[in-house]
Amino acid sequence: MTKRIDFQVDPSAYRHWRVDYDGPVANLYMDVDENGGLFDGYLLKLNSYDLGVDIELADIVQRMRFEHPEVKVVVMRSGKDKVFCAGANIRMLGGAAHSHKVNFCKFTNETRNTFEAAEDDSGQKYICAVKGSCAGGGYELALACNYIMLTDDSSSAVSLPEAPLLAVLPGTGGLTRVTDKRKVRRDRADVFCATEEGVRGKRAQEWRLVDEVIPNSKFDDTVVERAREFAAASKKPDVAEGIALTPLDRTFHDDGSVTYSTVEVAADRAARKVTITLKGPEEDAPADMAAFTAQGAQAYMLRLARELDDAILHLRLNEMELGLIVWQTQGDPEQYAAHEALLMANRDHWLANEVLQYWKRVLKRVDVTSRSMVALVEHGSCYTGLLAELLFASDRSYMMEDEFDGDNRPIATVTLTEANFGPVPMGNGLTRLETRFLGEPEAVEAARAAIGEPLEAEEAEEKGLVTMILDDIDWEDEIRVMLEERASFSPDALTGMEANLRFAGPETMETRIFGRLTAWQNWIFNRPNAVGPDGALQRYGTGVRGDYNMERV
Amino acid sequence: MTKRIDFQVDPSAYRHWRVDYDGPVANLYMDVDENGGLFDGYLLKLNSYDLGVDIELADIVQRMRFEHPEVKVVVMRSGKDKVFCAGANIRMLGGAAHSHKVNFCKFTNETRNTFEAAEDDSGQKYICAVKGSCAGGGYELALACNYIMLTDDSSSAVSLPEAPLLAVLPGTGGLTRVTDKRKVRRDRADVFCATEEGVRGKRAQEWRLVDEVIPNSKFDDTVVERAREFAAASKKPDVAEGIALTPLDRTFHDDGSVTYSTVEVAADRAARKVTITLKGPEEDAPADMAAFTAQGAQAYMLRLARELDDAILHLRLNEMELGLIVWQTQGDPEQYAAHEALLMANRDHWLANEVLQYWKRVLKRVDVTSRSMVALVEHGSCYTGLLAELLFASDRSYMMEDEFDGDNRPIATVTLTEANFGPVPMGNGLTRLETRFLGEPEAVEAARAAIGEPLEAEEAEEKGLVTMILDDIDWEDEIRVMLEERASFSPDALTGMEANLRFAGPETMETRIFGRLTAWQNWIFNRPNAVGPDGALQRYGTGVRGDYNMERV
Repeated sequence: MTKRIDFQVDPSAYRHWRVDYDGPVANLYMDVDENGGLFDGYLLKLNSYDLGVDIELADIVQRMRFEHPEVKVVVMRSGKDKVFCAGANIRMLGGAAHSHKVNFCKFTNETRNTFEAAEDDSGQKYICAVKGSCAGGGYELALACNYIMLTDDSSSAVSLPEAPLLAVLPGTGGLTRVTDKRKVRRDRADVFCATEEGVRGKRAQEWRLVDEVIPNSKFDDTVVERAREFAAASKKPDVAEGIALTPLDRTFHDDGSVTYSTVEVAADRAARKVTITLKGPEEDAPADMAAFTAQGAQAYMLRLARELDDAILHLRLNEMELGLIVWQTQGDPEQYAAHEALLMANRDHWLANEVLQYWKRVLKRVDVTSRSMVALVEHGSCYTGLLAELLFASDRSYMMEDEFDGDNRPIATVTLTEANFGPVPMGNGLTRLETRFLGEPEAVEAARAAIGEPLEAEEAEEKGLVTMILDDIDWEDEIRVMLEERASFSPDALTGMEANLRFAGPETMETRIFGRLTAWQNWIFNRPNAVGPDGALQRYGTGVRGDYNMERV
Repeated sequence: MTKRIDFQVDPSAYRHWRVDYDGPVANLYMDVDENGGLFDGYLLKLNSYDLGVDIELADIVQRMRFEHPEVKVVVMRSGKDKVFCAGANIRMLGGAAHSHKVNFCKFTNETRNTFEAAEDDSGQKYICAVKGSCAGGGYELALACNYIMLTDDSSSAVSLPEAPLLAVLPGTGGLTRVTDKRKVRRDRADVFCATEEGVRGKRAQEWRLVDEVIPNSKFDDTVVERAREFAAASKKPDVAEGIALTPLDRTFHDDGSVTYSTVEVAADRAARKVTITLKGPEEDAPADMAAFTAQGAQAYMLRLARELDDAILHLRLNEMELGLIVWQTQGDPEQYAAHEALLMANRDHWLANEVLQYWKRVLKRVDVTSRSMVALVEHGSCYTGLLAELLFASDRSYMMEDEFDGDNRPIATVTLTEANFGPVPMGNGLTRLETRFLGEPEAVEAARAAIGEPLEAEEAEEKGLVTMILDDIDWEDEIRVMLEERASFSPDALTGMEANLRFAGPETMETRIFGRLTAWQNWIFNRPNAVGPDGALQRYGTGVRGDYNMERV
């Protein structure tokens, strides 16, 4: 699995999904091409999926929001006759490296979170219309929709057969959504998750596993009816026309580096670190949202988000040994602030809302990225508003204090804006500043009082916004030693440590999926009962059951 | 590691701890005998600990509450000169099986939770007086205390060096308590957890890692002063005399079974299951708390809790292949209810409170026990009040419906009492019924309205209290097949599944420790970077650092 995985795709290249747009209703069909696997060695039978299938789905969900703002209801269906979706492809899982499995699951989780949140964030409600077997990751797709409809025939059922059949968990949110979203009674959830064939008909509704069970003869009509009803009840304002998400401007280099228009990814494989520099805008902010809309995907704030998103995904799946991300920004803080301010002043404009919602998702993707992150606030940097969120998403931050000999860039500053106080919360529901100052909530208010002020090092430290400030004498050595040391630690220990330290405070379904369910799944993905030569994943399809070590831990 | 681990100990046998009782203040000294390890192959140097050291600590904490109710403040100190505690013994960890490591950590976590909660539950406040190095599990002991005092000298520091030094996590609550209890700012927590030597002096206080830093010359006096102040400020009522926790009446059998006075543990290793039967009382309830106190440790409600606690711990550490616990009760529900009612009517009596608090802890221990649990409600059973909590702690429950041919025991019933609605919450802060009915809170009220009514099968099912009811025709086959099937699944998958399904709803520090931190630690405990031949745990002490696979997952 050494070819570069590309997260950019467009509708003309879809192999696994179809979308019909019908006014406020979009009909989304999963119809996986079994020969279209991302890697060799497995067939994507029975609408099973691999990362390639999910990259297309993520693209659809994203385009739905930017290119098709007229859509108010999305109906997810199977394009095949007897199966809705068999879940993640088992042979793919059996053959994949641990790191690929974990990052595959993370991306699929992010995609499900995105369409689940589309109702609240953008007024796009997802209905899942289930006909045929809906198993494992298939049912997890359904669980992330806002409304699940199941046909009542002898073969249509929902199931989570992972534990009994494969010795792994329904790890793409399945266990968490069953208990926390659908609030299935725990003993019923236990029976359900231990029953390979799943639950069908009235019992599925009685147990809260689906929202509605419909006789097969009336199923298709009822689905259409519900879609119409939900669209009619939607409070989403009508928007006639979206913007096109045109291809990214990017160049991949052989050493793992990538050059985008606003993002520079500089890999240093020997040092196991990668520096990601976000560049401030080169042009003035659009005059208004009409001008912004005319710029479309070329508008700076959207372009930057898309490029950053792509860069993170590239590093996650293609450069697993770059364990340390060093964040940098360069640019004119005031010019950047004007671009951001246009969006913040127009949060009721559909496109401003979508761009900010997208920033929220990208920053969440940063939060759950399993790399150590250090932000450097050098002279000439542009840590303002949303860009300053990188300081608070990082595990720690260092800031240049006073002038540096021979460095004539503008003195390093950090500037907070309204965007740091609400629109881009973390998965735990708090802003990054609220999470940071859990022990001293008054510090959040003190930070808010400084909105718009370019804070130099001492002030930024005094307000608790950076971890450490260093002057010209100490900077180079201290930073070098710190980065070298960090890059030398065990990646696994750092992953566990960061996953715990980054999400203090309240838990949400999202943090439980990434923090708790994922951790258990990762553990199981290392255990011989699942992945060993006699484990269930390897033996799947052979007719011989996994040979288990029966010790409980 | 095949000898049977015994969780019963008494002060005359302590090798690692000393306690001086001084009126309302108890002085607890950790003074580990380096030759007193539970197993061969390691020395417990520098006040490092293994399970044996922790079994003594758990015993002290428990006796403090029952035998020394006069104690209002406990001061935890080191009995050694230059070290407070070096944490869990690394050679022990390096040599231990995964299952031992995980169960060791679980028990140490439970002990820490117990003394942490002693202030709220019983008015016993723990002060940790730190002199010397307080590292890793040593600082985790301190973190679980209610107040941490640190002397200000050149060698006394608190640290969590696990990630940089050992490639594992501070997994005994360390990461969670740093962020969630002490609310250390996350970038400081990151620096702290990545710095082997830790933090000392004023910075430790400024970063919220300790509550008070005191010049070395004044340290001992200040500790004494604080202990007196806290004792004087305590609202705990004065109690002159406790009761003695006399040795348990128990017999271990070669096949893994154990016979206690009120609990029968019947192991079936071939079937990988164990049936635990709780027996109702044979005698009438004591007339009042004076009579109860006179019975002391022989009082049925306390005896049953102690025996159940010991049985669970025995199974966890000594019988790891008994993956399935089948709960049974037998006895007279009304007679049982009278014993429980005496405690519930006297919750302001110190001993009634302690016994109920202990039931809370034992039931929490059941909740986090990594075994599948099925409760069978047979005719003649005694699922009333606290015993009925086993129905709700179990993964599922089955109840006999109507009369069974040839079975002349009283018809199966379930009876709720006030004890099901408050005094024994789960770790998530909810009662087991509230957790069970998260999706239909009105069902909790309906259950409350049935307090005191012996509910037969149909009613119990209708109220959602049992998973399934079966009559004479189906019972034997269905139960047999279900138990056989459950015992055949991968233990790892079941552990992960149950850990997720059992704790729906809100999260607390406790659920985060058991559900999130533990899961990450278990994962890391399976990774070669920590436990492989070139991993950090194996290489510890050799002067050669672990050789890590640098891939991030």
